[in-house]
Amino acid sequence: VSDLDDHEIAGADAPPAPAPAIGEVAPSRRPTPGEAARTLVQHAERATLSTLAQEPAGYPFGSVAPYGLLDGGSPVLCISRLAEHTRNLDGDGRASLFVTEAFPMGDPMDNGRLTLLGTARRIEGNTAVAREAFLARHPEGRSYVDFGDFAFWQLDVEAGRWVGGFGRMAWCTPEEYREAEADPTPPVAPGAVTHLNADHAEAMLDAARAFTGHADAVSATAVRLDRYGIDLEIATPRGLAFGRAPFDPRVEDADGLRMAAVRLARAARGDA
Amino acid sequence: VSDLDDHEIAGADAPPAPAPAIGEVAPSRRPTPGEAARTLVQHAERATLSTLAQEPAGYPFGSVAPYGLLDGGSPVLCISRLAEHTRNLDGDGRASLFVTEAFPMGDPMDNGRLTLLGTARRIEGNTAVAREAFLARHPEGRSYVDFGDFAFWQLDVEAGRWVGGFGRMAWCTPEEYREAEADPTPPVAPGAVTHLNADHAEAMLDAARAFTGHADAVSATAVRLDRYGIDLEIATPRGLAFGRAPFDPRVEDADGLRMAAVRLARAARGDA
Repeated sequence: VSDLDDHEIAGADAPPAPAPAIGEVAPSRRPTPGEAARTLVQHAERATLSTLAQEPAGYPFGSVAPYGLLDGGSPVLCISRLAEHTRNLDGDGRASLFVTEAFPMGDPMDNGRLTLLGTARRIEGNTAVAREAFLARHPEGRSYVDFGDFAFWQLDVEAGRWVGGFGRMAWCTPEEYREAEADPTPPVAPGAVTHLNADHAEAMLDAARAFTGHADAVSATAVRLDRYGIDLEIATPRGLAFGRAPFDPRVEDADGLRMAAVRLARAARGDA
Repeated sequence: VSDLDDHEIAGADAPPAPAPAIGEVAPSRRPTPGEAARTLVQHAERATLSTLAQEPAGYPFGSVAPYGLLDGGSPVLCISRLAEHTRNLDGDGRASLFVTEAFPMGDPMDNGRLTLLGTARRIEGNTAVAREAFLARHPEGRSYVDFGDFAFWQLDVEAGRWVGGFGRMAWCTPEEYREAEADPTPPVAPGAVTHLNADHAEAMLDAARAFTGHADAVSATAVRLDRYGIDLEIATPRGLAFGRAPFDPRVEDADGLRMAAVRLARAARGDA
């Protein structure tokens, strides 16, 4: 706990709420579906591309596709006309990209995933921006992007279906997707969750008591976190509960997570 | 590279072939596309399910799906009517399951993957066989398979599109898929490849000289293996070459791989 002590804190401004019912989650900011979508796309390395098969005609056809990202989050593919999915897109541009959590924690079915639906179109003329966007994420692509059978394609996003895990899901609009910012914390989140539980159990308990309304908490375990806060599983004499402790301000980059956790712990203890 | 699809067996007692051209692969039995398909499906844990969206109508929609396998390799899903893919299948049963190599080696794009196309139908009446098949691969499913919103669905396979890596791909028919047997070696293959290269470089060189026609090989590296043999990258004074050394007989289970490698090495040295 000691290395959580020696830092400034933003104050814990709200008075403790009355104890919520077991299972109720106290209100706390979470990533929007648009943010969750941009975050999953940002950190995944490759997607499953779904296209409409030419043969057997009209069947949805899954294949693997590395992708780059343009400003605004539009995915860029670099695909060979010798590949089945390219023949499919030549016939019908409707497509989706499906990505899963790049840094999963626990049950894979309780981790985030996203289906980005839209229309894929081959980029004609100047492909410099697409090429750069693709190679920025896939430098190994230098070995094939300039082959004559390869071309860049862009997915114009028309809808996003996000599933956050058991029971958490939402659609997002193309505007919500385009305007949202990716969360920087996923690469460091699993390690941070492990560390918080292993070495800062007391701080997690303080946070549960201070922020979730469960003042009678007897222990608390971090189950996941994002730039806005930590999801806690809380043991109380009344049974198991869930709650959330906020980072204030939000985490701006992966390196900022440690300081945000220190602030949260100090605020939970009331030494603002 | 068309002879990559050659399935003839090169017996250890066949007369040595004349040195093939650089880049040419000597004939040696390989898994058929049907076997490769069954192998990928057998060892993957979950697939990307592609369905036809209800909204936006007709778009291919990717999602995640754990699956079980019936005799004959038909995948069984257990999906909730609250999930988007189930609504999609209720509207149009055409679907595909996409799986990737469970035990990849090297570049992900140079590893196997498979698209199984078919029609999904809800299993009505007695679901005991489907339930058992699903839980055999996903015991964690006990926590939800009997929920009222979940049901078992079966994919009736109509075609399989296999991609083995750069430049290796084929379709397989439903009959080829159904009748083929999964290769037991993938879980132990990456470790075996590493071990053969680290500790048995001389045996790999003997194998390259004896079985690939490159009698002037100066070194050889195992790049992948399956139950029928080892793919070798071979350095020769004429340049880099590729070849294959056969297991004879084929490997029957994961535990048999070591003995098969010993036999191969002895045959290569000529002390069979």
